[in-house]
Amino acid sequence: MKTLQLIISVFLITIISFDAYSQQVNQKYILVVHGGAGTILKKNMTAEKEEAYRVALIEAIKAGYNLLKANKSSLDAVEAAIRVLEDSPLFNAGKGAVFTNDGRNELDASIMDGKNLAAGAVAGVTTIRNPISAARAVMEKSEHVMMIGKGAEKFAKEVGLEIVDPSYFYTPDRWNSLQKIWKEDSIKKNQDKADEKSLKLGIENKDNKFGTVGAIALDSKGNLAAGTSTGGMTNKKFGRVGDSPIIGAGTYANNNTVAVSATGWGEFFIRNVVAYDVSALIEYKGFSVKEASRMVINKVGKLGGDGGIIALDKNGNMAMPFNTEGMFRGAITEAGKIEVRIYKD
Amino acid sequence: MKTLQLIISVFLITIISFDAYSQQVNQKYILVVHGGAGTILKKNMTAEKEEAYRVALIEAIKAGYNLLKANKSSLDAVEAAIRVLEDSPLFNAGKGAVFTNDGRNELDASIMDGKNLAAGAVAGVTTIRNPISAARAVMEKSEHVMMIGKGAEKFAKEVGLEIVDPSYFYTPDRWNSLQKIWKEDSIKKNQDKADEKSLKLGIENKDNKFGTVGAIALDSKGNLAAGTSTGGMTNKKFGRVGDSPIIGAGTYANNNTVAVSATGWGEFFIRNVVAYDVSALIEYKGFSVKEASRMVINKVGKLGGDGGIIALDKNGNMAMPFNTEGMFRGAITEAGKIEVRIYKD
Repeated sequence: MKTLQLIISVFLITIISFDAYSQQVNQKYILVVHGGAGTILKKNMTAEKEEAYRVALIEAIKAGYNLLKANKSSLDAVEAAIRVLEDSPLFNAGKGAVFTNDGRNELDASIMDGKNLAAGAVAGVTTIRNPISAARAVMEKSEHVMMIGKGAEKFAKEVGLEIVDPSYFYTPDRWNSLQKIWKEDSIKKNQDKADEKSLKLGIENKDNKFGTVGAIALDSKGNLAAGTSTGGMTNKKFGRVGDSPIIGAGTYANNNTVAVSATGWGEFFIRNVVAYDVSALIEYKGFSVKEASRMVINKVGKLGGDGGIIALDKNGNMAMPFNTEGMFRGAITEAGKIEVRIYKD
Repeated sequence: MKTLQLIISVFLITIISFDAYSQQVNQKYILVVHGGAGTILKKNMTAEKEEAYRVALIEAIKAGYNLLKANKSSLDAVEAAIRVLEDSPLFNAGKGAVFTNDGRNELDASIMDGKNLAAGAVAGVTTIRNPISAARAVMEKSEHVMMIGKGAEKFAKEVGLEIVDPSYFYTPDRWNSLQKIWKEDSIKKNQDKADEKSLKLGIENKDNKFGTVGAIALDSKGNLAAGTSTGGMTNKKFGRVGDSPIIGAGTYANNNTVAVSATGWGEFFIRNVVAYDVSALIEYKGFSVKEASRMVINKVGKLGGDGGIIALDKNGNMAMPFNTEGMFRGAITEAGKIEVRIYKD
């Protein structure tokens, strides 16, 4: 009996020491961004393209960081960082949004304030330059959480957001991606005309479904915020919406637990209620942000999905797990140290 | 030390006995439905109207029960029960959907299969007679989870669902409700022209936001399913979407835990990720379905929202908490005993 007690004591001390050690080596992070997860392989990337992604991620991080340093809210920082990524043609959100099956760009975004669990989202919008700002306006200037389609566009216009012609979202790269898929689809169709899967909508091509940008932040008052923005899936049909505008799936923030933004195969992230599940594991099971995030990505993987998340807890501990080849991601510590990564560590 | 062990033992035995007792008195339920929560007061209800609601709820319950008895799936039962409620003009879903601010009917629905966490949803549709069947088609006949607006309607048509002229959803009762709100809004507007709240969209009238129907079921193979369908909020603007089509908020089902369908002030149900939270409390905290459901409704109340949920766990235990004056609800046990209630117990 005494021996057993001794073993348990030593075991507990070991756990406590290890935890104290990991707290010590962990820096306090205050802003984390992602630019999408997917089959990002070094061999397919030029040095110039890699550099362009790094520059854009750093620019987004700095835009958020400067606001946090000026004592602005985590919500302001999240919106500012995402607007930079939306304005870049490199990411599948805002300017760089992918094309739908009928050659349009339909954008989704959501944002959440961890202080009061306020939230806003838009889906299927085609004329709003910065969907993340529309999501924030839904949260702050209406009593609603989610608006879709033409109605959301009308609201954005009424509250004075920048409206653009849908052609603003045309980028040659994304247009070529759509052409390529159309060509592949037409070959596939001829090969197997009776294929039952003809109704299953263009995601046989693994890379159609990725992209998405997101940011999470912790401000000097201890408030967490999270936001996500996307152009969805290349060649998407039928007004398909993924997890990005879904509070609890693509985005979640709660000052008592964590801020989360997700990227990946949206259908699996909705079915797993990914962003809120990280929070629930922290709150109900006492998991660390790293343990909770890793478990949630493993659950997505078990169901057959892939992607990644960024998560930041109320103490500034950060996690960025993904089960794809790569994820564009970056973070900044309170001291201003920036880290940007693309591939697996 | 011995005394402490004794106290703990007695305490544990007490818990176990109590649990055995509650299991014994609880009947095994296999289907539960709701027809919306809100300010439902006996004094405002005629005997005829009350009877009409009871008859419709019983008809829906029987439609689902007959399928379960014939060894059909919980998914079939949920869809069948909800179709009955959608086809009734009494409930705010399908035929009886409320009107938007511009005099239209925009419908939302979602469904989830607890066996494999498959899910489907549609939002903002105006021509699909039974949105719950469209949600199921999205789940089973596409690789997506959510479709919105015209795209979702196109999909529903392609898979052969019944398409109706939008005028099908006209009912005099709902039209009169919209006229009444327009009149109230116009009085309010004249009283306070500079009111910042003019952008806040017509939910000062507490009862505009209720309605919604839902069903949850447990079949003979132990599979849980959940579904929810709604016409949303009377006088809603800007393509507003509530919790009903949001997996994790309005609908959730998981064979390992529980099936849940929600009704109420959708914005608060989204922000609280209500349906999944019931599951998380059961899975991560070991709560009973009654404890988990009550806690989640209390969380909604704390944030300022109201409404109710129906929940059925994998063992056939059921809960139907709400924090409104009433909730149209009913359940059937495995032995065929039907209970239907409208007001607080």
